[in-house]
Amino acid sequence: RSMATTAGRSLKIGMLPADGIGREVLPAARAAILALGSSIPKPEFIDLAAGFEHFTRTGTALPDETVSVLQQECDCAMFGAVSSPSRKVTGYSSPIVALRKKMDLYANIRPVTSVSLHQLSDCNSTAPISMPQVAADPTAKPDVDLVVIRENTECLYVKQENQVNTEHGKEARATRLITERASRRIGEMAFKTALARPRKHVTIIHKSNVLSITDGLFRETVRAVPSLPGVNGKYDEVAIAEQLVDSAVYRLFREPNIYDVMVAPNLYGDILSDAAAALVGSLGLVPSINAGDSFVMGEPVHGSAPDIAGQDIANPLAAIRSAALMLRHLGYGDGANRIEKAVDAVIREGKVLTPDLGGKSKTSEVTNEVIKRI
Amino acid sequence: RSMATTAGRSLKIGMLPADGIGREVLPAARAAILALGSSIPKPEFIDLAAGFEHFTRTGTALPDETVSVLQQECDCAMFGAVSSPSRKVTGYSSPIVALRKKMDLYANIRPVTSVSLHQLSDCNSTAPISMPQVAADPTAKPDVDLVVIRENTECLYVKQENQVNTEHGKEARATRLITERASRRIGEMAFKTALARPRKHVTIIHKSNVLSITDGLFRETVRAVPSLPGVNGKYDEVAIAEQLVDSAVYRLFREPNIYDVMVAPNLYGDILSDAAAALVGSLGLVPSINAGDSFVMGEPVHGSAPDIAGQDIANPLAAIRSAALMLRHLGYGDGANRIEKAVDAVIREGKVLTPDLGGKSKTSEVTNEVIKRI
Ligand SMILES: CC(C)[C@H](C(=O)O)[C@@H](O)C(=O)O
Ligand SMILES: CC(C)[C@H](C(=O)O)[C@@H](O)C(=O)O
Repeated sequence: RSMATTAGRSLKIGMLPADGIGREVLPAARAAILALGSSIPKPEFIDLAAGFEHFTRTGTALPDETVSVLQQECDCAMFGAVSSPSRKVTGYSSPIVALRKKMDLYANIRPVTSVSLHQLSDCNSTAPISMPQVAADPTAKPDVDLVVIRENTECLYVKQENQVNTEHGKEARATRLITERASRRIGEMAFKTALARPRKHVTIIHKSNVLSITDGLFRETVRAVPSLPGVNGKYDEVAIAEQLVDSAVYRLFREPNIYDVMVAPNLYGDILSDAAAALVGSLGLVPSINAGDSFVMGEPVHGSAPDIAGQDIANPLAAIRSAALMLRHLGYGDGANRIEKAVDAVIREGKVLTPDLGGKSKTSEVTNEVIKRI
Repeated sequence: RSMATTAGRSLKIGMLPADGIGREVLPAARAAILALGSSIPKPEFIDLAAGFEHFTRTGTALPDETVSVLQQECDCAMFGAVSSPSRKVTGYSSPIVALRKKMDLYANIRPVTSVSLHQLSDCNSTAPISMPQVAADPTAKPDVDLVVIRENTECLYVKQENQVNTEHGKEARATRLITERASRRIGEMAFKTALARPRKHVTIIHKSNVLSITDGLFRETVRAVPSLPGVNGKYDEVAIAEQLVDSAVYRLFREPNIYDVMVAPNLYGDILSDAAAALVGSLGLVPSINAGDSFVMGEPVHGSAPDIAGQDIANPLAAIRSAALMLRHLGYGDGANRIEKAVDAVIREGKVLTPDLGGKSKTSEVTNEVIKRI
């Protein structure tokens, strides 16, 4: 099902709330999409099962039915968050990792932006430009404006693991897979993304001082993207830097403004996007999409947060922003902009925020504030 | 060569400056050790070759001679820092990774502490208790006091990698090895370390929601340390928590004071210790030791910093502190304390600091300030 066919008819959105606060923030994303009214094709939401809780009830974390409905009926999807078992559970395997692979959603795109930057760039706003009210933590950095482009299908996430018993005890091994094909397509995504941004800068994250073959392949393949046949100098304007992952995390914290687009193998991207989220005040603000060539799935970067689940205090903004990213990816940029401006306005006003941002409001109250402004 | 035999005679210290600023900070460590005078056995420094620059000249990054002198003649060692090739170089392999393995230095111990905490706990000090002068970056956190205990011999650092050509292009694989034996001994080190600290708290870092077998083994083995035969309730006072590595980095930035001892597989420990260093103002402050059952090697956590090498502006404090950690590990706690107090005093006074801490002083000037106070 290609994206082009969605125009003019309904937009079928698979909804996979999964576990914990995933179930509280996905309704917020749904409400935001509905609030766009007729500016997008009429949304049809299809509720689909997945998650650790579903596993404990049924023995499967990702029913075949869910995958086939996504593949055959949906134009896109929204994923909530998944809980992790606190002990090893035989037969359980993360549904989000499986979904990314089964749907070939090879790029995990995670924009992380300080709220104050949004304000400065929001020319239509009449609100005074001031530090955001989200400064529950004064260390929230004002100048973060980056995108983590995370390879989403391989690295240690191929989950090829085994364990043997030896005379010295148990020995476990996992395979880390890096292919030229996957490195190339994630590299292309990074250059394409950078080209559309004002700074046009790509930083390749790797650890090739230790992993000279696997990370060497990643690094060289991404570096070679601008000289691929057919590129024809398109990326000549894009500057390329690289950084070892340990030092990248260090510099992310010390000088976040050196980064524009960061492209990374799967696990480094996982860690880097959480690290970047810490810089802008809360994981509850950071959205993502899992994107393939013919499908896209929005997903807040935060987890299922069992400690606050069920209290109606989860921050819905990451999920709402993920819906906007999903819509933009499908070609509905206007709708995406309307949602994002509404979110930015609510943050800027600073009156109706969840506790992670120093506020006292409920998930539902924040959602309503956003809806009002869409 | 056991540590007990060192008392009463000379202390033979292998010196491996390796590359870049490693060559500028190791003389500072040497000067600090010498300044202790007769309170430790007479130090004898043995200069040893290693590093990328040595590789480019000779074709080997870690001469056999270096390893055999360390094994047969030295009581301990100090390592500087190693440069990484910017492109794949056939035959090159990181000497620090090899040394850790060859000398079986299985624990990389990296204490990260805010300067202001040192001040508060320095009861002999007559200086006013105030925010340190190192606040070149106002986000340096005041309440970091943690130790990263990093497994130092396995994980992806076993460097078992290969690459094949397929019809879809190159495919590279690396093996990630986690053994019960290595997980147990690093776990024991973590509990032992926690027991000696006021908060007595261990956080196990893993990613077992994806790596259920390898990180599952790490997690379960470390968790089982308090109930090992022979432990006899010794660790009953130590509280155990655990955290997924992505969320650990997030929370390290947001709430660093939740951590006391963090124990992690090799690569996560590498990333976490750089992340923690970012919180206290500079990598130039963070020391480490690589410790085995019968040998210890001090090593600043920072890299070879080719961008500032040769300018006499590298911060020598991490290397000096690493010498102190090394001495304490050998049983020379008084000498270690004297060095650490001198370093703390120089930081607290804030007058003679290198540029990474907002100062204008040279490596040699900072070193002299420390020496004066030892
Ligand atoms: C839940 C977990 C498997 C997942 C990941 O590691 O990819 C999560 O941390 C994320 O970032 O989406
Ligand atoms: C130089 C490199 C191989 C090394 C590592 O990754 O262990 C360094 O980053 C460190 O932390 O000591």
